[in-house]
Amino acid sequence: MSLAMPEPDTATIERRDEIVAQLKRIAGDEAVIADADGRRAFETDGLTAYRAMPLAVVLPTTTEEVADVLRYCHQNKLKVVARGAGTSLCGGALPLEDAIVVGVSRMNKVLELDYNNRIARVETGITNLAISKVVEEEGFFYAPDPSSQLACTLAGNLAMNSGGAHCLKYGVTTNNVLGMKVVLMDGEILELGGAALDAEGYDLLGLMIGSEGQFGIVTEATVRIIKAAEGARPMLIGFSSSEAAGACVSAIIASGIIPVAIEFMDRPAIEVCESFAKAGYPMDAEALLIVEVEGGEEEINDLLTRISEIAEPFNPTTIQISSGASQSAKIWKGRKSAFGAIGRISEYYCMDGTIPLSQLPLVLQRIGEICASHQLRVANIFHAGDGNLHPLILYDANDPDSAERAELAGAEILTLCVEVGGCLTGEHGVGIEKRDLMMTQFTESELALQMRIKTIFDPDWLLNPGKVFPLHLAPQGLANQA
Amino acid sequence: MSLAMPEPDTATIERRDEIVAQLKRIAGDEAVIADADGRRAFETDGLTAYRAMPLAVVLPTTTEEVADVLRYCHQNKLKVVARGAGTSLCGGALPLEDAIVVGVSRMNKVLELDYNNRIARVETGITNLAISKVVEEEGFFYAPDPSSQLACTLAGNLAMNSGGAHCLKYGVTTNNVLGMKVVLMDGEILELGGAALDAEGYDLLGLMIGSEGQFGIVTEATVRIIKAAEGARPMLIGFSSSEAAGACVSAIIASGIIPVAIEFMDRPAIEVCESFAKAGYPMDAEALLIVEVEGGEEEINDLLTRISEIAEPFNPTTIQISSGASQSAKIWKGRKSAFGAIGRISEYYCMDGTIPLSQLPLVLQRIGEICASHQLRVANIFHAGDGNLHPLILYDANDPDSAERAELAGAEILTLCVEVGGCLTGEHGVGIEKRDLMMTQFTESELALQMRIKTIFDPDWLLNPGKVFPLHLAPQGLANQA
Repeated sequence: MSLAMPEPDTATIERRDEIVAQLKRIAGDEAVIADADGRRAFETDGLTAYRAMPLAVVLPTTTEEVADVLRYCHQNKLKVVARGAGTSLCGGALPLEDAIVVGVSRMNKVLELDYNNRIARVETGITNLAISKVVEEEGFFYAPDPSSQLACTLAGNLAMNSGGAHCLKYGVTTNNVLGMKVVLMDGEILELGGAALDAEGYDLLGLMIGSEGQFGIVTEATVRIIKAAEGARPMLIGFSSSEAAGACVSAIIASGIIPVAIEFMDRPAIEVCESFAKAGYPMDAEALLIVEVEGGEEEINDLLTRISEIAEPFNPTTIQISSGASQSAKIWKGRKSAFGAIGRISEYYCMDGTIPLSQLPLVLQRIGEICASHQLRVANIFHAGDGNLHPLILYDANDPDSAERAELAGAEILTLCVEVGGCLTGEHGVGIEKRDLMMTQFTESELALQMRIKTIFDPDWLLNPGKVFPLHLAPQGLANQA
Repeated sequence: MSLAMPEPDTATIERRDEIVAQLKRIAGDEAVIADADGRRAFETDGLTAYRAMPLAVVLPTTTEEVADVLRYCHQNKLKVVARGAGTSLCGGALPLEDAIVVGVSRMNKVLELDYNNRIARVETGITNLAISKVVEEEGFFYAPDPSSQLACTLAGNLAMNSGGAHCLKYGVTTNNVLGMKVVLMDGEILELGGAALDAEGYDLLGLMIGSEGQFGIVTEATVRIIKAAEGARPMLIGFSSSEAAGACVSAIIASGIIPVAIEFMDRPAIEVCESFAKAGYPMDAEALLIVEVEGGEEEINDLLTRISEIAEPFNPTTIQISSGASQSAKIWKGRKSAFGAIGRISEYYCMDGTIPLSQLPLVLQRIGEICASHQLRVANIFHAGDGNLHPLILYDANDPDSAERAELAGAEILTLCVEVGGCLTGEHGVGIEKRDLMMTQFTESELALQMRIKTIFDPDWLLNPGKVFPLHLAPQGLANQA
């Protein structure tokens, strides 16, 4: 596709054998993947249109090993791409041919569970879902729930400040992390935050979350675990237009009720997901809301009844309250497997932007026009409660031109999000995908300020280079290579 | 008291007339306060033990004026202390004799109200309560509610990342601010964040919030406004020990119920507040919880009943549900006027630290011992829901030795908070008060990293100098003067 990465440094590539030998000495033979087949598993991430074989892959098992590896790379000016599960949809974990991939996947231990203070201390290679699983029997869970939660690691969630369908009530990653242990590029190990909500000093913890692996590698984190409500139940509300659905979301929020989730799907998304999950989604609706509330049985009934009343004036085509656990599971299976389901019928390009809720109808209309103008189909899924939009642009992977057009349409859509007062990413991050679009949101001096902060943590710009900032703005070293 | 401030630069003080003339040319005569009586109103803040007459005070009315003033000060290497309402309890707004105070109090306009997207854009000189007042008739409010909300400005809330009794449910300042306009020391005007929850790029918005006026002066902010629930009602639960009260708080949180507020008061606090507010606090209790829930009438009754049941096993001495609006008002009047009420009987030193909830009994016992060892009385108020502790150390302002001992006791208490896994400040900030205690929480390299970030925003360390970091660690310019 069309986005350039920094030219690999041939001198570094020629030193490959020596570098691999050194890495093995530091982290142990079994921690280093040097053969082509092994490395190929790391050549791309969720944005599969971009690929590059890394120089080598290291999978350390301790914070100290990570520190030793980074110190070595720092001394030898070797680029490093940190990696969790590689599920990034914006190329955040895309390697470079002259870079060392440092993966935390083998660091997945639970270090401490403190139910009294409602915190869990874990290694960041643990998957998002595994955190909830381990505290499940005590009735707790970890709130942020990206659709990829079965596979994605906490490390990746921290890098991208991930959200999820249920973040409306409980917030995104940054609202659920209290402390972390991070290794800086020079091998220094920092402890940030702690077990309490606020902390003195500047908010380095918040700064680290969402920094896309460009400041350091987070090896441990203390996260909030939340007591699960007695129960939860979703309802389906179908509408004859996205305007009506959008207005209904505003009315629900304005009522003071805070559902756990309000998910929006347009007709194409409904059709694909229903055919996959058989969840009973209404096929006659132009727009569908999945609204989930939680609490005691009585509270749930009260809330769902009130939401039904709130929806009435918007002439819903259907109002269907989940009949129980099995239907609830199907309803969420349909939504959470939306990407997979659409992936079965076509290659797709998953966009991620945020918009003010009131702009939803306009934005959906423009998205339709944009994709039509590129002869592409699109399905829209929207975390309506917090304005996070996920258009899925369908394209033909065997037709380079079609892929090209998908990328163009995507850029137009994200620019639109910025124009209506939203921003370029809700939870996937910038990575390589939105690197050049940063210019649409920030002035050069604003980007320069951000880059000066990057330089504090990583003076040589060795950590995850070629991402987040337009290449021509990045320091000489990178810009020249581009 | 015992904390040193940087020595004023006599050359600057000698240039005073010329500087005042320039400031008047930039911001207009009426915006500059140069006479001694006028300046005296700005010589201290809520930490009245420390005082210094500023060189001059400027109260601009536009962002551009603030930019012009900062640009002039930057070019002339003049120190600047930003000020909201001067209610800081940690000396965050304490002036220096060679510094210009730039106050935003005249910039208090509401610029935009958008109820559909639930945001308000305001100038930061507006008081915290005024934001809620202006959206009140539409049924909305601004969530963070420091006890000083009648007086304190949003600017100060942003500088200290302020919380309040009701932050348990709605979060602190950083959770309720979506965007801001900030003027950097060189006069550059930045827009950070926007109208959406997350944003691409590094989290500069989060970094700015809580930076204690050391990065720039925030002149505008876009804040979330929240739809007020149908109703809210507090209940009083008295206990014969703080252990029981602390355990009950854990049980309430663990139940999954999220009250709007859970406030803890020990016996001395109860006595003072009851004598002031006649709220019907139980005088026989060693510890009192004020638990407030909100929602529809039915929901409120359901929740209060459930909380009563949860409290039973902890043998409460009283359980009293507010009989209605007037008693609810009294109950909160008592709590919110606690500081004022205690101030009527004695000078006090209000501490602010956070602790893991499970440590409450131990910490309260140690606080009692620490204050006794310094022959001082103490009253404890605690935002129990989020672990934010406010010991009020009573001392005799006419007895320097007593004030000295209060400061020593305070330092011991905050060190204790850190030892048990909490931190130095929950919502008041570091300011001058906790400057030297930062060493107890951070390593020198961690502090060095924070100071490098400070240097990016303010290379000459002109903004609010002498605060947040121990003087001996601050750049030469400051350290030498100390």
